[in-house]
Amino acid sequence: MVALLIEKENRPAGPEWKKWLYNVIFEADTKAGKYFDLLLILCIVLSVIVVMLDSISSIRNFHGNILHRLEWFFTILFTIEYLLRLICVRSKIAYAGSLYGIVDLIAIIPTYMSLILPGSQFLLVVRVLRVLRIFRILKLIQYISEAELLIKALNASRRKIIIFMFTVLTMVIIMGSLMYLIEGEKHGFNSIPESIYWAIVTITTVGFGDIVPQTPLGRALASFVMILGYSIIAVPTGIVTSEMAIVSMEERKKKRKRLICSNCSQDEHDEDAFFCKYCGDRIQ
Amino acid sequence: MVALLIEKENRPAGPEWKKWLYNVIFEADTKAGKYFDLLLILCIVLSVIVVMLDSISSIRNFHGNILHRLEWFFTILFTIEYLLRLICVRSKIAYAGSLYGIVDLIAIIPTYMSLILPGSQFLLVVRVLRVLRIFRILKLIQYISEAELLIKALNASRRKIIIFMFTVLTMVIIMGSLMYLIEGEKHGFNSIPESIYWAIVTITTVGFGDIVPQTPLGRALASFVMILGYSIIAVPTGIVTSEMAIVSMEERKKKRKRLICSNCSQDEHDEDAFFCKYCGDRIQ
Amino acid sequence: MVALLIEKENRPAGPEWKKWLYNVIFEADTKAGKYFDLLLILCIVLSVIVVMLDSISSIRNFHGNILHRLEWFFTILFTIEYLLRLICVRSKIAYAGSLYGIVDLIAIIPTYMSLILPGSQFLLVVRVLRVLRIFRILKLIQYISEAELLIKALNASRRKIIIFMFTVLTMVIIMGSLMYLIEGEKHGFNSIPESIYWAIVTITTVGFGDIVPQTPLGRALASFVMILGYSIIAVPTGIVTSEMAIVSMEERKKKRKRLICSNCSQDEHDEDAFFCKYCGDRIQ
Amino acid sequence: MVALLIEKENRPAGPEWKKWLYNVIFEADTKAGKYFDLLLILCIVLSVIVVMLDSISSIRNFHGNILHRLEWFFTILFTIEYLLRLICVRSKIAYAGSLYGIVDLIAIIPTYMSLILPGSQFLLVVRVLRVLRIFRILKLIQYISEAELLIKALNASRRKIIIFMFTVLTMVIIMGSLMYLIEGEKHGFNSIPESIYWAIVTITTVGFGDIVPQTPLGRALASFVMILGYSIIAVPTGIVTSEMAIVSMEERKKKRKRLICSNCSQDEHDEDAFFCKYCGDRIQ
Repeated sequence: MVALLIEKENRPAGPEWKKWLYNVIFEADTKAGKYFDLLLILCIVLSVIVVMLDSISSIRNFHGNILHRLEWFFTILFTIEYLLRLICVRSKIAYAGSLYGIVDLIAIIPTYMSLILPGSQFLLVVRVLRVLRIFRILKLIQYISEAELLIKALNASRRKIIIFMFTVLTMVIIMGSLMYLIEGEKHGFNSIPESIYWAIVTITTVGFGDIVPQTPLGRALASFVMILGYSIIAVPTGIVTSEMAIVSMEERKKKRKRLICSNCSQDEHDEDAFFCKYCGDRIQ
Repeated sequence: MVALLIEKENRPAGPEWKKWLYNVIFEADTKAGKYFDLLLILCIVLSVIVVMLDSISSIRNFHGNILHRLEWFFTILFTIEYLLRLICVRSKIAYAGSLYGIVDLIAIIPTYMSLILPGSQFLLVVRVLRVLRIFRILKLIQYISEAELLIKALNASRRKIIIFMFTVLTMVIIMGSLMYLIEGEKHGFNSIPESIYWAIVTITTVGFGDIVPQTPLGRALASFVMILGYSIIAVPTGIVTSEMAIVSMEERKKKRKRLICSNCSQDEHDEDAFFCKYCGDRIQ
Repeated sequence: MVALLIEKENRPAGPEWKKWLYNVIFEADTKAGKYFDLLLILCIVLSVIVVMLDSISSIRNFHGNILHRLEWFFTILFTIEYLLRLICVRSKIAYAGSLYGIVDLIAIIPTYMSLILPGSQFLLVVRVLRVLRIFRILKLIQYISEAELLIKALNASRRKIIIFMFTVLTMVIIMGSLMYLIEGEKHGFNSIPESIYWAIVTITTVGFGDIVPQTPLGRALASFVMILGYSIIAVPTGIVTSEMAIVSMEERKKKRKRLICSNCSQDEHDEDAFFCKYCGDRIQ
Repeated sequence: MVALLIEKENRPAGPEWKKWLYNVIFEADTKAGKYFDLLLILCIVLSVIVVMLDSISSIRNFHGNILHRLEWFFTILFTIEYLLRLICVRSKIAYAGSLYGIVDLIAIIPTYMSLILPGSQFLLVVRVLRVLRIFRILKLIQYISEAELLIKALNASRRKIIIFMFTVLTMVIIMGSLMYLIEGEKHGFNSIPESIYWAIVTITTVGFGDIVPQTPLGRALASFVMILGYSIIAVPTGIVTSEMAIVSMEERKKKRKRLICSNCSQDEHDEDAFFCKYCGDRIQ
């Protein structure tokens, strides 16, 4: 999964200007590349704000015209950027089919499609996915290795979390069905799926309060579900924490350079050792 | 407890077809066994969905007939399966009395009982317990060892969690009673049990909002309960996490390279040992 | 604090029957002592249930008479028990002044006081404190050592938790005041104390929903408070967990009997070692 | 950041009375210094309570006069204190520009400004920032080292927490937009920013319940958001806990007994070393 987050090397073999363009658009090593990235993030953030403002009816009614123009401005900008990316990569298909390639495309199509299908609210919202493009900046600020560590720990605890999720799901189905039986339709528990929704709201300690038990027995069972939810949160936390601690410690150990004594072959020496601490022989 | 989750070996001594049937139904080693398990999961999930849809009044009123037929279809299917299981095990009583044997039976009786006791909503919901049968698939996907590790850690922290739960219960009773005294019936705290229910809703950070304090003193006490609940969640998390970390580390240590003494063949030596701790012979 | 939870040795020097009475009432080593404790727990639980039922107006109106008699029955029972405890201890003052001595007294006075001050609801609720007497059973089920471990870990992290609490309190005061400024009285934020109450409800992720921000700026600040509350819960959890892990590991290490090699004085040997793993000399 | 919390040494070189004043006001080593600090804390707490009471309309209407006088009393007191601080420090600019210098000034200006800008509620609330002055007492109770440890652990996990926050923000934007699409304005999801607010309320498990999904699809997505929020809390907890455990362990290791080589006087040896790792001489 982390592989998806890192853009693959796709450096063009072609002429110098292509290489330069590639460095500016895809890399963040040069000054121009960094400025390009910062400008791009600014454009993405602004275009997402335009989408958000466009969804507020009072603003849309009064400033709809400006928002419409801004939307087209950013769309054309992102279209040019997309074309430039397509031009300067070595393999056009590899880029277009990659996660970022698809997200880059999704960022521009909805606006063009709104010409054909006017008034579609669905297209309005899809444009929000532009926000995903910002994940590219992880590259810029060299946070990739930290993200990898997190994903490594989550990956190692995958199986335990699946079992946990599966157990929670079973609990929620049974508890929801019981509440449907106990409280019934006259207290808002209209069906088993709705009662399961209530059980999820309760076991995750969200507690909207739109559906609440009203009978003593219902409240007793709800108390049980709440205490359960409050306690079992310790399980995923315990899983992830212990994995994360192990991953962190291994990272630290790796950093300690290993010295091997030629006399007794022990290798548990500190970085700053000159003599073997087991047999006293000179090392290094 | 984990013993309950794993089906006991109950292999028939009888003829070949019984052994083959046992392998298909109870094991997941063969291709046929895997397909059987997948088909069974599909049937269970579908039958639980039928139960859920049946509880939605609008769907029951229009498609009640189809749901009724589907319900009977799955009941007959599970009945055949139950009989086949009974036939191919060595000890019929051991299977029928085991956790899964009982769950398998519960999955089919309600529908038959609805013939005698028509219109009983209780029977409708009991059928949801079918979902418990899916726990068998843990066997299929070899997640048992991970589940065992989780249960081992939870088991080791059992005593600490009981003390914690007992302390929380005492707090909740005292806080609930105090709130009943402070807020009283005119603000919805109608009785001590109801106030205790409120205290549980609050200390677990669920916060439905159906009963809320309205006096300054009540709100001050509620603030205390909330901060308490927010802080003490650290206790079960700490208990489970530290047990889990210890269990994980022990698992890892077991996997480590072992030194073997050429004299006495013992292999329980530490990494930094020069001499066998059992016979004093030089190792390595 | 744990010292308060364990009853101090207060064995009488006097005649045999006093010693026997002391063993039955205060200890759980003999069969009679265990039965006495179980009976006492049963009485406490029943008497607390009576108090709870008495607070439900519908039950009090119809069965008030029975509840009243039961209340007097338990009060007289606990009075006899209190007198017996007083008789059989060596130092009457030490017992009467101890935590359990006070709780034992609180369990009986309210009912007697209700004769002088009839109709006082306050006295009704004080009787709930009887539930604290059950903590004595920790002695019965030998959970004291586990409780000590928990308290040891909490004690070690005391200072860090005080700093954390103090920081949260400061945040809550500032955030509450800001919300009072932003939302004002027309959206339910009637005063700074009330806004601080809202901030506590929000930062602890309880979220009753009786007071909610309605302006865009208020919601933005509320979002910040929520994300803050959601994130900083990691701090107390981290504090308690790491202390608990350290305490657990130290307990484990203590259990490993230490062998010392008379030749090289190393003491890091395993329990099952016959020879020193560093110099090969015989140990034990 | 911790540097900001500790007041910098700013001892005057001047006459004796200045040194004495500095010791009383800025230090807590002398008896007079401790009494000054305690008195100051008392004044701060009281003045903050006055601000809070002043915000409750019923109290302001009846006791506004007394509150007004108390406010001026504390303002003049803090003004004198501020001037004394200014007098006795060596560098006036360093103090006035420091975090505490600014907070000390903020504690007094609003009251004076209310003479020029009468009736400004904004000024009323700013006075609450006085509460920040109490952080000085950390010095008094020697909690600085514990606070440093906490900040060290949080600092070490800074990068991982930024990635986590960034991921949560992206999720919340996408989920909020989807809910706006699914539920729409007729169920209270009036705009994308408002839906994002709902997503934050839900993912942090606060759950006010002022905006709730009502369509089956909306509830299904809400269930997903809730389970997500319930699970991913494990991530920041895991990050902080594992960092805190590492920091705690390193603190402990530092305190451990150190072996010292009699030849080269180096003391950074492991517990199980026979020979000095720096000069090869036998140790112990």
